[in-house]
Amino acid sequence: MSETARTLAAEVAAVNDILCAVAVLQWDNRTVMPAGGAETRGQQIATLKGLARERILSGAMRRAAEQALAETEGREERDLERRAASQVLAAIRHHERLDPRLLQRQAELGPVAGAAWAEARAASDFASFLPFLAESVALARESAEAMGHDGHPYSAMVALYEPGETADSIKRFLDELRAGLLPILDRARGRPRDALVDRLVPVEAQRAACRGLAELVGYDFGRGRLDTAVHPFEISFTRNDVRITTRYREDFLPGALFGTLHEAGHGLYEQNVAEALTRSVFATDLILLYAVGGTSFGAHESQSRLWENHVGRSEAFWRLNLSRLQGHFPGALDDVSPERFARAVNHVEPGFIRVDADELTYDFHIMLRAEIERQLMDGSLAPADLPGAWNEAMRRDLGLTVPDDRRGCLQDVHWSSGYLGSFPTYTVGNAMAAQLMESLHAGDPELGERLAAGDYARLAGHLREAVWRHGRSRSRDELLVDATGSALTPGPYLRYLAAKFG
Amino acid sequence: MSETARTLAAEVAAVNDILCAVAVLQWDNRTVMPAGGAETRGQQIATLKGLARERILSGAMRRAAEQALAETEGREERDLERRAASQVLAAIRHHERLDPRLLQRQAELGPVAGAAWAEARAASDFASFLPFLAESVALARESAEAMGHDGHPYSAMVALYEPGETADSIKRFLDELRAGLLPILDRARGRPRDALVDRLVPVEAQRAACRGLAELVGYDFGRGRLDTAVHPFEISFTRNDVRITTRYREDFLPGALFGTLHEAGHGLYEQNVAEALTRSVFATDLILLYAVGGTSFGAHESQSRLWENHVGRSEAFWRLNLSRLQGHFPGALDDVSPERFARAVNHVEPGFIRVDADELTYDFHIMLRAEIERQLMDGSLAPADLPGAWNEAMRRDLGLTVPDDRRGCLQDVHWSSGYLGSFPTYTVGNAMAAQLMESLHAGDPELGERLAAGDYARLAGHLREAVWRHGRSRSRDELLVDATGSALTPGPYLRYLAAKFG
Repeated sequence: MSETARTLAAEVAAVNDILCAVAVLQWDNRTVMPAGGAETRGQQIATLKGLARERILSGAMRRAAEQALAETEGREERDLERRAASQVLAAIRHHERLDPRLLQRQAELGPVAGAAWAEARAASDFASFLPFLAESVALARESAEAMGHDGHPYSAMVALYEPGETADSIKRFLDELRAGLLPILDRARGRPRDALVDRLVPVEAQRAACRGLAELVGYDFGRGRLDTAVHPFEISFTRNDVRITTRYREDFLPGALFGTLHEAGHGLYEQNVAEALTRSVFATDLILLYAVGGTSFGAHESQSRLWENHVGRSEAFWRLNLSRLQGHFPGALDDVSPERFARAVNHVEPGFIRVDADELTYDFHIMLRAEIERQLMDGSLAPADLPGAWNEAMRRDLGLTVPDDRRGCLQDVHWSSGYLGSFPTYTVGNAMAAQLMESLHAGDPELGERLAAGDYARLAGHLREAVWRHGRSRSRDELLVDATGSALTPGPYLRYLAAKFG
Repeated sequence: MSETARTLAAEVAAVNDILCAVAVLQWDNRTVMPAGGAETRGQQIATLKGLARERILSGAMRRAAEQALAETEGREERDLERRAASQVLAAIRHHERLDPRLLQRQAELGPVAGAAWAEARAASDFASFLPFLAESVALARESAEAMGHDGHPYSAMVALYEPGETADSIKRFLDELRAGLLPILDRARGRPRDALVDRLVPVEAQRAACRGLAELVGYDFGRGRLDTAVHPFEISFTRNDVRITTRYREDFLPGALFGTLHEAGHGLYEQNVAEALTRSVFATDLILLYAVGGTSFGAHESQSRLWENHVGRSEAFWRLNLSRLQGHFPGALDDVSPERFARAVNHVEPGFIRVDADELTYDFHIMLRAEIERQLMDGSLAPADLPGAWNEAMRRDLGLTVPDDRRGCLQDVHWSSGYLGSFPTYTVGNAMAAQLMESLHAGDPELGERLAAGDYARLAGHLREAVWRHGRSRSRDELLVDATGSALTPGPYLRYLAAKFG
């Protein structure tokens, strides 16, 4: 490493340290913090994020990055020193463009709008939320103009979470997916629901089972923890401390089990970023200001959905592992066959709530939101017209009549905090998981057998090589082209869903 | 508040936020962090402390503090705006004097010397630790010269933890105490030990009992938590989130009970600092770089020892509350009377280990360390001669022959990390607790009865008024003079111990 690269790395490492500290504060906040701590915790996080931004915009950071870029002129396109310099400079440009007063207004609106949303949702009262939504959207549009875009302001938002995507590329991708999904859904809907998923299982036993599942797929508890959270998440403070959470309902076992596998998938990605990338720009999102090794939200979601759905919801998984659950929950599942269990946890049924949706209908919830976000951002949909647009899309795609806004356009917290643009990454993740799995099976014909025999390390080895170890040093599509020969495409995902549900 | 005071307060609030974040990282580190996180966690804390130091030394902080001092010229001595400016300027001067290279050498030595100490202690091998101790002492002496002192370098170290004290004032205080303690100890030693303290009590039941005890004395779980730690501690991130820890041994119930009351005493102090002082210089130690509302280490310890010993180890406490324990531990204590329980947990027996010492012999362990620290700092004791000096003092004061250095001069971690000067604050705390209690009883003749009746809120009210609410806005001796008419003095403590053990 050159002297310049080392200087730049040291500057970035300090920012990574600050952002890891923010992540610890957030983990604490969402798992163990007493209620009293909320207000000052918000101030602490705001101060640290402000410091991170200051460091990114400091003269030392800029000089080191500019010099590193100049010194690496002409190097090959994937040269890591050159990439590091470019990524830092891109972050500097990003933060320069965003007026601190705009950030301040967004930061101030966030908690107020969030509280208004929570009240409005509880009362199913869209009108009371509308002024906050309108301001949140207005600020997002102002941000998009400040960040710059390709002609459509939604492009600026989408690219924050999924670099390389635009308003139009996401629309094309989702439209193609919708067209392919509708006939599969037509065939899959209407099958009866198996009430075995509602059987009572004590939370303590679920906890032990979930820990066992995470270990089974290779999540390292020496560098991690599994805790309880109202809204499950994975969070990391370098690859050496990557924590996951799940939630437990005594009368709905699949929630905790698949939630754990989902977060363990995120956790495996972070725990397996190459050690050499620790505290580097390739383990830090300098634009969104958080410490993360995954290269995009979609790439991250691909790993969680892969372990949750491709591994965890397969019949082969339960043929091998149902007996573990039966051991944890004496009596509760003794009469259930692996085939029946797998069928029950793959039941398809269109519903109103995104977070409760099954694998096949989940993406429709995303398409609806992406369509609406795009229109809110370009002004073709007024915030006041949100409920009508929402309900119309639910009818069109899933054939459902939304009974009230609580189960409609008020169900998600995202828009109240200005997070427009992140929804499509969930579906990107689903498609990327299927695209990777199709290629991995093709390249390793024994993979299916090995998975059926419980050799999850073989799959993990492939994913470590193709995805995890690279951290943020390669883009999502670079990873996909290298691993599958193609950038993101919905074909493999449609083939997988057709085979599973068709 | 003037514009200048507001500017200064905002600068300090940001430093407080950073130091609260450091405290969250430390809490996490010591309670829940997976082993893998240790190395990067150390880097994160070092980066944040460095940022706090940078902010304190920034032009903005200095300008605001100097201007605030100028604008408050002539105000009365306890004026808070003036005090805030003075305290900030004192911190600026402190950090200016300490060369970052010295801090860097101390920071680098810390973990290495700590590991060497742990190995040396396990093997009772002082020789292997000696080079690290020697370097640690040399760096402390270098720091003391940089900080400046009254002629004795130990004064600089003592004042870090107990502002206002010097090498000589501490020596006088401890010498007077030793002279008074020896005859009390003579009378109290040799009474038989009651094995009831060793009865087996399941950890889960102890946990519930400890939570109950903390609640009983007024510790607020809405702004706190009780967790498990190898080395129990209290830590706060503003008054709104003040956490305590204890440790459990199935075969030694008093450890968890009195550990909890001790930490709850610290916690009560922090939870009851006036709300208006939140994020201010009066809730931040800008010199030692940590977020704390207590005005000195000794003042803090006075509150923990007061609740642990004056309240928790009193017969009256157990006459009222033993039945609670009996409820938590069915069978284990059914045959024990409150009087017997109180006697058992007040057993006096000179021993080798400070952290296991009873109330009466504890201070001898401190005197020994203070005497040695003083000599190490002024060079009259060479680090190589530590074991001899230690063993000699143990024989002289407690009549014990130290069998090996593991149970002698290698037992504490402090010196390996350069913490010379903090030991005396434990005894300062003991004396301050007794001094406060004597005056509170004199001023409120009903206090004893009310405590016996379980009205702990009455005592808490007195302490809130006299100590807690002031945070760091008054010095320890200001608090004592206001509350008791005298600065710190060992008389009340000796009277209390004579009455209890004589």
